[in-house]
Amino acid sequence: MRRSGIKELLVATNLDREVLVKGWVRTRRGNKYVQFIALNDGSTIHNLQVVASAELFPEENLKDVATGASVAVRGTLVASQGKGQTVEIQALEITVLGKADPEEYPLQKKGHSLEFLREIAHLRPRTNTFGAVLRVRHALAFAVHEYFNKNGFYYVHTPIITGSDAEGAGQMFRVTTLAPEHPPRTADGSVDFSEDFFGKPTNLTVSGQLEGEIAAMALGKIYTFGPTFRAENSNTARHLAEFWMIEPEMAFYELEDNMDLAEDFLKSLVRYALAHCADDLQFLNDQYDKELLVRLNSVVETEFQRLTYTEAVEILKTAKQKFEFPVGWGTDLQSEHERYLVEKHFKKPVILTDYPKEVKSFYMKLNEDGRTVRAMDVLFPGIGEIIGGSQREEDYTKLITRMAEMHVPAEDLWWYLDLRKFGTAPHSGFGLGFERLVLFVTGMANIRDVIPFPRYPKNAAF
Amino acid sequence: MRRSGIKELLVATNLDREVLVKGWVRTRRGNKYVQFIALNDGSTIHNLQVVASAELFPEENLKDVATGASVAVRGTLVASQGKGQTVEIQALEITVLGKADPEEYPLQKKGHSLEFLREIAHLRPRTNTFGAVLRVRHALAFAVHEYFNKNGFYYVHTPIITGSDAEGAGQMFRVTTLAPEHPPRTADGSVDFSEDFFGKPTNLTVSGQLEGEIAAMALGKIYTFGPTFRAENSNTARHLAEFWMIEPEMAFYELEDNMDLAEDFLKSLVRYALAHCADDLQFLNDQYDKELLVRLNSVVETEFQRLTYTEAVEILKTAKQKFEFPVGWGTDLQSEHERYLVEKHFKKPVILTDYPKEVKSFYMKLNEDGRTVRAMDVLFPGIGEIIGGSQREEDYTKLITRMAEMHVPAEDLWWYLDLRKFGTAPHSGFGLGFERLVLFVTGMANIRDVIPFPRYPKNAAF
Repeated sequence: MRRSGIKELLVATNLDREVLVKGWVRTRRGNKYVQFIALNDGSTIHNLQVVASAELFPEENLKDVATGASVAVRGTLVASQGKGQTVEIQALEITVLGKADPEEYPLQKKGHSLEFLREIAHLRPRTNTFGAVLRVRHALAFAVHEYFNKNGFYYVHTPIITGSDAEGAGQMFRVTTLAPEHPPRTADGSVDFSEDFFGKPTNLTVSGQLEGEIAAMALGKIYTFGPTFRAENSNTARHLAEFWMIEPEMAFYELEDNMDLAEDFLKSLVRYALAHCADDLQFLNDQYDKELLVRLNSVVETEFQRLTYTEAVEILKTAKQKFEFPVGWGTDLQSEHERYLVEKHFKKPVILTDYPKEVKSFYMKLNEDGRTVRAMDVLFPGIGEIIGGSQREEDYTKLITRMAEMHVPAEDLWWYLDLRKFGTAPHSGFGLGFERLVLFVTGMANIRDVIPFPRYPKNAAF
Repeated sequence: MRRSGIKELLVATNLDREVLVKGWVRTRRGNKYVQFIALNDGSTIHNLQVVASAELFPEENLKDVATGASVAVRGTLVASQGKGQTVEIQALEITVLGKADPEEYPLQKKGHSLEFLREIAHLRPRTNTFGAVLRVRHALAFAVHEYFNKNGFYYVHTPIITGSDAEGAGQMFRVTTLAPEHPPRTADGSVDFSEDFFGKPTNLTVSGQLEGEIAAMALGKIYTFGPTFRAENSNTARHLAEFWMIEPEMAFYELEDNMDLAEDFLKSLVRYALAHCADDLQFLNDQYDKELLVRLNSVVETEFQRLTYTEAVEILKTAKQKFEFPVGWGTDLQSEHERYLVEKHFKKPVILTDYPKEVKSFYMKLNEDGRTVRAMDVLFPGIGEIIGGSQREEDYTKLITRMAEMHVPAEDLWWYLDLRKFGTAPHSGFGLGFERLVLFVTGMANIRDVIPFPRYPKNAAF
């Protein structure tokens, strides 16, 4: 007999037929006449109720049908007489596939702290919370691919291991096959990287953008979606050493086009989650964040506020609120400033543009004022910066001047400069930290709870 | 005026209207009355013909409209009088956005060897060949996500940096932030990994399977699609140090279900490429491999041959062909054996099952004969093994026995063993090397030509 998924059965309309389901027992309760088993197979947050009559299943025969056990149930799918579900199964046969000893199995009925669940990351996907988060995470990842595919973008796999350390040097992980104890040495005693796997020092990428630009200058519109790495010693609820990034890059896009894309993209992702993850989001809303659904709907419906960094600084200077960090033209905005703009002043998502060149990267297009660059940051309520992007400097001379000013070695980036030598064109792109997006959409508070196996200082478990 | 994409314009039916296109010049040719510019914007392998009359555009004004230059063209979209295209643009305005000096730009009209193009991987996406390969690669990646999403699988990001070296130890890249020259040492002089970023030695993952099993035992059906790494010193047309893997894992699936999924999945991917990449595949067929389309169609239409390893060995023993490596029960099959079965004997894709336990991994389910395991390899024409998978050992005692026999440290995999302790269930999965798939579908011969930036010994350029 073919197994049915619980998600399908819960909305089935042809009842009074025999079905086979397999899943894990969430709870079992009842009395001497009947036992109710809540069965979950991961396809949805909802359980299927299995009704086991004492005639067929004396309670002593059900002792292994305990929380966490995996079982196969053959029975009749019927309309439920009880509250809370429309269908249920009247069991004809129950087979325990794998027990879960109640004395040992950590996920008993009682609630668990998110901190405790992080220590058992191999079991936490079995909880309602992490099931919901992981299904939403899946839906968002799929929505990313679907959005870009539909809009003519090509998915490009940029390299994970990179020989270039143009960005973020010093916060990178080194990748090596040299013996750690006694690496080969050159005549002068330094480590001989010519003996390393790639014949030189290599690192884990911090961004696929520069290689993404290569692809955009050939395929037109591209995006990356892959892991990126920061060896920052940050033990916070906002930082991971390993996280996933989405980086679209578009030839012939100027900053306005880039902003339009970013706004449409974010709204489309949130809209997708609202449409496809209603049950999971409702659970997260009820359990963790009563404002979640209101906030998600508001982002979808609101036009983002666009203004320049300079305008934002003026607003912040005259704000009634006292900030920990002073505001002045030329310094980067702090999280408290960003959140004031989004949550207090405009009460909606904000796109800030045209930052001072000193606080931004070498590759951003210089404005005609010579002081600001065509950067854009998208700021979200509760999150702060969710997207950072820019129009790129397409002028060879201006780019190499900025690189020299910022001590970026031109010889390492000869290929990046070549893009400006041969058929250069205006182009733009941005980066969206995927876990920031999942944080926003799920309403979770700690970034370690929106990725299956978080990596952070002193932790690479599982 | 809004820019139009060339892919859309080439099939447009409302003609005789003004349009704006931007792209790169592939060629310019003509005579003293008229110049023809072949323009490509990456959206398709086909160029849009721009007709520039000498009246409006004296040839001397077009000298920068050379191969590789980026241009914006405003003009009238009209039915083409020439052969090879149905529409063309009569130019009203041509603006050069970025020149490409013919003396310096490497991609002139003449053909280039694939070896040469590998050295300019930052420009090769601009060629017809790599444009086609990258668009097919995109389509296949999207087809993977679409297939799984439609069929109720959840996409799970398994960790890239791993503290476990249960599989493939010795062929892994180490990830570290310790100073290479003078790492911290413990009292006994060995490297002090407690000072490393994660407080212990860490590596780049060789597979997401074990963590994928965690997710499958909660969400039911999952898949991974991410980069994996092998520090093998293999300089071949089949090996990469960094490549992308797809690994579905399904609770309650036995080996038969696993084979059904693998066959349906592969056929669905090839079918998708045939439907969505007709132009690019036609080009690759004509240019590189005249049998390509025939082979792709045959895979879609043929039922894969399923047989056991033991049956395959019998066939090979009586084969007329002389093999370099001898065939005998108990030894792993070589590429020549696999290709004989697929290309000579059965003349279609083959799924081999039930290999001797000695040649397979510790986690595969032991058959009742005690000698073979529930492994499956899918073998493809021209490729050999494209998928490797198995039903997993779900029995705690049998698993720990196999681990001891194969010297896999149980203490490192306590969490993997826990999956067998708490609610264990039959489950199965497989791995598909994405580049092997792209090789098969594009008909390219070298795996370095189907990934944008290949990593192999002594090469991590770009």
